[in-house]
Amino acid sequence: MNKKPTLFTSLSPALLHLTNLKDAIVVIIDVFRATSTIATALYNGATKVVPVAAVDECKRLGSQIPNAVTAGEREGKVIEGLQYGNSPAEYPREFIEGKTLVLTTTNGTKLLHMAFAMGCAEVVTGSFPNLNAVCEYLVSQNKNVVLGCSGWKDLFNLEDTLFAGAVIDRIHEQFAIHDDASLMAQQIYRLHQNNLFKFIQNTTHWHRLAAYGLQKDLHYCITPNVANVLPVFRNNELVVYQ
Amino acid sequence: MNKKPTLFTSLSPALLHLTNLKDAIVVIIDVFRATSTIATALYNGATKVVPVAAVDECKRLGSQIPNAVTAGEREGKVIEGLQYGNSPAEYPREFIEGKTLVLTTTNGTKLLHMAFAMGCAEVVTGSFPNLNAVCEYLVSQNKNVVLGCSGWKDLFNLEDTLFAGAVIDRIHEQFAIHDDASLMAQQIYRLHQNNLFKFIQNTTHWHRLAAYGLQKDLHYCITPNVANVLPVFRNNELVVYQ
Repeated sequence: MNKKPTLFTSLSPALLHLTNLKDAIVVIIDVFRATSTIATALYNGATKVVPVAAVDECKRLGSQIPNAVTAGEREGKVIEGLQYGNSPAEYPREFIEGKTLVLTTTNGTKLLHMAFAMGCAEVVTGSFPNLNAVCEYLVSQNKNVVLGCSGWKDLFNLEDTLFAGAVIDRIHEQFAIHDDASLMAQQIYRLHQNNLFKFIQNTTHWHRLAAYGLQKDLHYCITPNVANVLPVFRNNELVVYQ
Repeated sequence: MNKKPTLFTSLSPALLHLTNLKDAIVVIIDVFRATSTIATALYNGATKVVPVAAVDECKRLGSQIPNAVTAGEREGKVIEGLQYGNSPAEYPREFIEGKTLVLTTTNGTKLLHMAFAMGCAEVVTGSFPNLNAVCEYLVSQNKNVVLGCSGWKDLFNLEDTLFAGAVIDRIHEQFAIHDDASLMAQQIYRLHQNNLFKFIQNTTHWHRLAAYGLQKDLHYCITPNVANVLPVFRNNELVVYQ
């Protein structure tokens, strides 16, 4: 019998260094809203998504890359000098198809670059809109997996943990899982999988974003498989895995 | 109406700096087994418990303090040069009454000194054996509270989270609680409060310690209120709150 690959959940970027990333696939999870928006833009035909940490770099790349749009928000508003925001609803096919989205976000982008710098085998991004694509890919690769929750300014958050739990609940039989974070994530997900819309309204991030009138966005971000592609990070760009 | 004090849960020592410790009471939680053993020794009449990080300091203080016993384990065995281990079962009244326990542990002691160095108002220790004593004290003080899980080498663990959840489940009405970690901890606790002995056997720490034959110890450590005193940290010593 072949030995199963391992699966581990990191609940915060501040805990990522405790996991063994070598030769592992890292799934960057930032449900509200970076990785939901990334999946959506690519699903709707964006050529690629370029995730950047700094606003200045976002502007610079936006002016260099042909057919690019720049995007980023702080406190619910489009950042001055950028064109669009972080909402997946801003990127329907009729707008984003054939374009490059240069996206600056805080928590998710930071974690993505961290994981890449730490020498993992591959970085992909996940959220409920591309849940099945993530699960199918992980099962197909037979490599160790780290589910990396972006959190909020390094704090634990429930929406990313729920997504990690949703993945674990679907693929746990194919992996060796021996960490308490994964066990907790799966249990929290199972507890709320049938009332996710209601439960998520208790989380801190919901309260923060709902104050900006983003309830519809947040509902979309926890809806499974409505943008079911797999973004993979290659040459500093996220593209659809073919 | 008076404003309620806040309660926040830190899931790992590596996340403690994200909490506002100023003027807060920090509850150090290391269920397997440091804070269970501390409560037990003090409940059984130990004069004080001196928590130290280094083995050498443990030996030094053990030889300086009258009527002291030194204790510490690594990988299930008493550390060479020390006298006793980390098991609460080693400290019955007929042995420990009137003595000083100089205890070296890794995760719990580290967190205790961190919290103290970060300028909190007070450090107390908690585990299931002194659950009610912790809750009663926190409610009586009307101060902000941080529940500090020791984890395992900075990793999230379930047994400390379950204790945080048990505290929150009992006192949440007296506090303003707005963090996802506290919400998760309470939910995981509620899910398993009636099958705690069975559920805890799924955790990584159980597997680690059960391999050393410590099942009976672990059962004791998740039994509520069998050593119901409140250890408070004063002048580098833990003493019973009077």
